[in-house]
Amino acid sequence: MPYVNIKITREGATAEQKATLIRGVTLLLRDILGKNPETTVVTIDEVDTDNWGIGGDSVTVRRARERQG
Amino acid sequence: MPYVNIKITREGATAEQKATLIRGVTLLLRDILGKNPETTVVTIDEVDTDNWGIGGDSVTVRRARERQG
Amino acid sequence: MPYVNIKITREGATAEQKATLIRGVTLLLRDILGKNPETTVVTIDEVDTDNWGIGGDSVTVRRARERQG
Amino acid sequence: MPYVNIKITREGATAEQKATLIRGVTLLLRDILGKNPETTVVTIDEVDTDNWGIGGDSVTVRRARERQG
Amino acid sequence: MPYVNIKITREGATAEQKATLIRGVTLLLRDILGKNPETTVVTIDEVDTDNWGIGGDSVTVRRARERQG
Amino acid sequence: MPYVNIKITREGATAEQKATLIRGVTLLLRDILGKNPETTVVTIDEVDTDNWGIGGDSVTVRRARERQG
Repeated sequence: MPYVNIKITREGATAEQKATLIRGVTLLLRDILGKNPETTVVTIDEVDTDNWGIGGDSVTVRRARERQG
Repeated sequence: MPYVNIKITREGATAEQKATLIRGVTLLLRDILGKNPETTVVTIDEVDTDNWGIGGDSVTVRRARERQG
Repeated sequence: MPYVNIKITREGATAEQKATLIRGVTLLLRDILGKNPETTVVTIDEVDTDNWGIGGDSVTVRRARERQG
Repeated sequence: MPYVNIKITREGATAEQKATLIRGVTLLLRDILGKNPETTVVTIDEVDTDNWGIGGDSVTVRRARERQG
Repeated sequence: MPYVNIKITREGATAEQKATLIRGVTLLLRDILGKNPETTVVTIDEVDTDNWGIGGDSVTVRRARERQG
Repeated sequence: MPYVNIKITREGATAEQKATLIRGVTLLLRDILGKNPETTVVTIDEVDTDNWGIGGDSVTVRRARERQG
């Protein structure tokens, strides 16, 4: 019955990777806490890099700075 | 003053259906808990079926399996 | 399969009121969008009035101001 | 280490405005609570006006009504 | 840089189980999507069974019904 | 009309600090995006250090390690 929300930057995760992530998180909750996989819900939010900040800057700005070295 | 977030799979809910849902949830909170509709906020997230998992599989995979019988 | 999160201030909602709210929201999603009640999940967060702000003030401060007239 | 999620209606916020918002929230958390900016995460969700309700109506409906006076 | 929120019912998960879950989710995101564990944040919300609904009933009610057979 | 959710570890933030944070975030949204403070909602979740992970460890474990040098 757990509910899991995963937020990542939108940078090209494939449907296969997301399916693997859903499967993996669901099994972790079964193995560690005995939660029933049938009612475990996982949602993934892919967030534009303009809309994700860390260290006071957007990821867009950080990526541009990294590229400039 | 309540805040409600509703997550559904993105499968064609219309603006009218979403408006009906917003109205309905707002009135429930007024009728059951006496909450003021004027400051009740409702947001709806429509999530791609690749990004929603239940039972360890994405909804995309489940839908494909159902179609195959 | 929808997931609904309801945030309200912690001001004495009873278990019965919360059960009525869970039932009501689940039926709305069935009636408006055809969602399966069996896999509809609703969580309710009760938030201390110190931790809820509207109009730039915490609800604790607003309630105190209202009492003073 | 704080995590902040900001939801606004999708009505044309620019990358510059969002970057300013990320910076401002991060510094508030440093100044008020002593939180380390390096590990402060901010995400911004821009929500379609059909999917945002207040006062029992979607923002789309409210905006239309305002325009009609 | 991912952010993960896990909601479970409050039913006695230990600090060790929660630490194992945090570790496991962080490593999944590294292994599947190449995400940096150092900036991966995981929060766990434990929700009272009165405040969690599935199938239109609170978990409190469902547990009582199960005990009665 | 924005909705902001702030998650911090539960480590003694005072009501005054939280009120200052609510005020500050509300004014940022007014100043940067022109949002109406009257309908801006801010909620603060204080999360136990056992329930917050970063870098694959709970904050409880990290704090213990830091104390040991």
